[in-house]
Amino acid sequence: MRGDGQLVPALEEILLQEIRVLDRGFIRVIDYMGSDEAVVQAARVSYGRGTKKVSEDRALIRYLLRNSHTSPFEMAEIKLHVKLPIFVARQWIRHRTANVNEYSARYSILDNEFYLPEPKDLAPQSERNRQGRSDELDAEETKAALELLRTEAQRSYGTYQTLLNRDERNSKIDPSRKGLARELARMALSVNFYTQWYWKIDVHNLLHFVKLRADEHAQYEIRAYANVLLDIIRKWMRLTFEAFVDYRMNAFSLSGPAIDVVRSLLAGAEIKREDSRLSPTEWRELMKLLCSGKEGK
Amino acid sequence: MRGDGQLVPALEEILLQEIRVLDRGFIRVIDYMGSDEAVVQAARVSYGRGTKKVSEDRALIRYLLRNSHTSPFEMAEIKLHVKLPIFVARQWIRHRTANVNEYSARYSILDNEFYLPEPKDLAPQSERNRQGRSDELDAEETKAALELLRTEAQRSYGTYQTLLNRDERNSKIDPSRKGLARELARMALSVNFYTQWYWKIDVHNLLHFVKLRADEHAQYEIRAYANVLLDIIRKWMRLTFEAFVDYRMNAFSLSGPAIDVVRSLLAGAEIKREDSRLSPTEWRELMKLLCSGKEGK
Amino acid sequence: MRGDGQLVPALEEILLQEIRVLDRGFIRVIDYMGSDEAVVQAARVSYGRGTKKVSEDRALIRYLLRNSHTSPFEMAEIKLHVKLPIFVARQWIRHRTANVNEYSARYSILDNEFYLPEPKDLAPQSERNRQGRSDELDAEETKAALELLRTEAQRSYGTYQTLLNRDERNSKIDPSRKGLARELARMALSVNFYTQWYWKIDVHNLLHFVKLRADEHAQYEIRAYANVLLDIIRKWMRLTFEAFVDYRMNAFSLSGPAIDVVRSLLAGAEIKREDSRLSPTEWRELMKLLCSGKEGK
Amino acid sequence: MRGDGQLVPALEEILLQEIRVLDRGFIRVIDYMGSDEAVVQAARVSYGRGTKKVSEDRALIRYLLRNSHTSPFEMAEIKLHVKLPIFVARQWIRHRTANVNEYSARYSILDNEFYLPEPKDLAPQSERNRQGRSDELDAEETKAALELLRTEAQRSYGTYQTLLNRDERNSKIDPSRKGLARELARMALSVNFYTQWYWKIDVHNLLHFVKLRADEHAQYEIRAYANVLLDIIRKWMRLTFEAFVDYRMNAFSLSGPAIDVVRSLLAGAEIKREDSRLSPTEWRELMKLLCSGKEGK
Repeated sequence: MRGDGQLVPALEEILLQEIRVLDRGFIRVIDYMGSDEAVVQAARVSYGRGTKKVSEDRALIRYLLRNSHTSPFEMAEIKLHVKLPIFVARQWIRHRTANVNEYSARYSILDNEFYLPEPKDLAPQSERNRQGRSDELDAEETKAALELLRTEAQRSYGTYQTLLNRDERNSKIDPSRKGLARELARMALSVNFYTQWYWKIDVHNLLHFVKLRADEHAQYEIRAYANVLLDIIRKWMRLTFEAFVDYRMNAFSLSGPAIDVVRSLLAGAEIKREDSRLSPTEWRELMKLLCSGKEGK
Repeated sequence: MRGDGQLVPALEEILLQEIRVLDRGFIRVIDYMGSDEAVVQAARVSYGRGTKKVSEDRALIRYLLRNSHTSPFEMAEIKLHVKLPIFVARQWIRHRTANVNEYSARYSILDNEFYLPEPKDLAPQSERNRQGRSDELDAEETKAALELLRTEAQRSYGTYQTLLNRDERNSKIDPSRKGLARELARMALSVNFYTQWYWKIDVHNLLHFVKLRADEHAQYEIRAYANVLLDIIRKWMRLTFEAFVDYRMNAFSLSGPAIDVVRSLLAGAEIKREDSRLSPTEWRELMKLLCSGKEGK
Repeated sequence: MRGDGQLVPALEEILLQEIRVLDRGFIRVIDYMGSDEAVVQAARVSYGRGTKKVSEDRALIRYLLRNSHTSPFEMAEIKLHVKLPIFVARQWIRHRTANVNEYSARYSILDNEFYLPEPKDLAPQSERNRQGRSDELDAEETKAALELLRTEAQRSYGTYQTLLNRDERNSKIDPSRKGLARELARMALSVNFYTQWYWKIDVHNLLHFVKLRADEHAQYEIRAYANVLLDIIRKWMRLTFEAFVDYRMNAFSLSGPAIDVVRSLLAGAEIKREDSRLSPTEWRELMKLLCSGKEGK
Repeated sequence: MRGDGQLVPALEEILLQEIRVLDRGFIRVIDYMGSDEAVVQAARVSYGRGTKKVSEDRALIRYLLRNSHTSPFEMAEIKLHVKLPIFVARQWIRHRTANVNEYSARYSILDNEFYLPEPKDLAPQSERNRQGRSDELDAEETKAALELLRTEAQRSYGTYQTLLNRDERNSKIDPSRKGLARELARMALSVNFYTQWYWKIDVHNLLHFVKLRADEHAQYEIRAYANVLLDIIRKWMRLTFEAFVDYRMNAFSLSGPAIDVVRSLLAGAEIKREDSRLSPTEWRELMKLLCSGKEGK
């Protein structure tokens, strides 16, 4: 019986199962080490006899997360099998504190699988936000764009096969040609083709990943993965998940100047944006936070 | 003339100078690469033609720091020579994303230099905070404690020399003895002896270090170093420093439940701690933040 | 005058210049910190008074590299601007101990620039090596393949523009359409399109990168970049470069079983592969190393 | 049943047991994720259908390690509880790619446990090697040195208690005194006192650690830990262990100039050190390797 290797039933239930993301992607939990208990155990090593009083795991985990005592959260680890479009993989890999083994298009031929958005996810460029989308496209333009993306990807894969001189069954298409090396032929593929990898990460870094990538400013496609990760964390480490939601996901960082504004408001003072040290964007976000009924973040 | 290697006059002025920390420690800026301009330059690569509108460096840096776009801050780097007590070095080294070359007590003999606190910095254990100090000690106990620390360290160094069989001039003390290897003899030294190292780090990670170590919960001795680092950053990268103060040092993270409390208060509602989802500590900290006149964090 | 920030004339000469790589890529040195001298300086901090005898910089640097005392090599840092095809960027980014700011296709429109190999670099799949190329293709197949790659990339960019509904001058192509968000439209681009980034790394990690990526097993396209990096290192840190060539690039790691074979050979014994503990590949490589007149690696 | 989480019986047998190191230290395996199989599994994701031919796990693992394809070895992870002297901890922590939770002397009182070497391990400074020990000390000097170390450590702990004003049962010694904060009092302790931590690391980085720290140039005390780690790896991942011994532990890196010497010798030529490009030390090490009957490294 392992120290903290006890099985987590809710996670065991989905172990090895492909959780669908986007049209052909998935996340699959391969293995994990530790759980909420591993965090508590590690924290108690640090605090030694000093923690006798902190008897409750939940309170300890909330304390740790709230005060950025992050090292105990590095003591639980998870390994995932992820299938994802190349352009998502390129955003994902920017998180460096993780281990990766990716399918190699130098060794093997990529499958004919590419990402096509749902009609509802096609959108024009946002005017206000240089890196975002705005509302939906009208039906006709949507249909045309989807058709174009599909045609482009299909032709892209056709070119790939022609260059390789290999068909779906890996037989030579034209016996008289040698075909191009795989590492060269793949140049024809567009970045919405799917790749896959094993990805291993500790919970501290996983939470950081999810915080950034489940954010509304993240591109929709990686957000779809981050939301699945969020659900995996919830199944795996319930206490950590709850603390994370309260102290990170739904939290809002008040800057020094914003604190001054809140204090003035609470004191009943009238305050105008121009008299604060907030930019128009900051002011708008703060007012939205303070006034809006519900949304949290 | 280097791309962004322009000299920063305010930093050049203190280059190579020993800035005193504690009784015998120091920080010395050895070299640096980049400045505020390097951050801006890197951000503009990311955003490409998209940043034409964001014409002002100050606004861009504030935007980056506020939105946790941290990678441009990794593009400026600084190298420091630091002399510090071993027990401080042990806290310091926990920050892994940095480069270190430490004086080796296997190769060379350590100097007879140890840290003795100022009388004002001697304090009893805090009752409330398991990792902190409370008020000052009375004069008599202070004096006795200092005397004990000094005697202990001096004896410790004497033992070191006897084991090495070497005096201050590195001559054999007793010609008939071989003396112990340096790597063994140093076991007699206490953790308030000074060591030194070269330490190189990028600004993103340096800000993270300073945020944690200049915090009031950090041990006083490492805080003394963090405060000097803060001043170095101010001299080196004025715009980054100011943004850091507003968005990190003086910021306060409102948790989801705390946001609900602030909204209720603004709506004029009466709210009791028990009805919130805040712990007593969280409630106290929030009320202190909202009500206190000035202190920010 | 900085501690070790003395200018390195040979590197200053190429500073900010685009060194051409592949057909449209480049590497440009943006800034650097330290040089051979910084390595020596850091090593001397570690060894303290112990290094008085090691008076010669060259000998010290060779000693450090030979004995894997790698930390002093982390004390010199370089920042590069690199333009490279996406599929090369995907191999490159696997080196995690570096800082990156990449051009964002969410913020800005990518240029119509894609990589097309030289005819001589088009090659069929190697039969023996699953991740490599073999000899050249015949002229006719080469020509056809290049034509196909070119057509595919051009069509890919055309689709990108149609989806964006933007022409080269960033004007709307069809005033009645909104066009797709940049982060979506870029899905149509193939992985031989060029991207660019700022990349900052210390010399220890740079040497590791070059060791792996200038290796004959690396894909030709990234090797082209690694060879330019090698030349930059030579200009920047002559002593480190020479030691690196002798102890890493031209070195060969003899396994335990291979050492036994070499000893037997030197003792004049006949030895057959079957009696060694070497695999056929290992045996072949060892014999090539020992017998071949010249090649080193 | 987990993907590759199958239990490893040989490791399960020692799970949670304290494996004694030095006089009062230990290593205890707390948890682990993966095994040889996890390495194979990850490699097969990378190579995709390309690996069908490489059917044998042992051959694949040897191939990976021999060719520095290190990422699959990052897919297995182990968590250890280690008790070790502070001066060993200071060397250990220099390996940054690991997770650590250390017992905090700010929160809790350290036990009265310090390291005293075995008489056989006390040695004078090596004349030839600036960082090493030479032969044993004579019996008398050994005895005196041990006595001095013991006395010093005991007095050190006594001072610690006096400063804390706490006895072994954590009762106040002198009711009239407040006693010093723990974070201050610990300054009196010498670096041979034991600390402890949880340490989590992947196998790639663990092998790197062991390679450096089980080396004959490492300090004896950390080597004692590295040797236990080696034994843990052997129990845990037999195939990886064997490949590591052949390709790393018992391997020898021939520099470019050394390859030339070996070729000349095999060609029957006489060659003198002066005519090679080897330093005296390199020459001596090479000759020892080639001629010595057995020792491998």
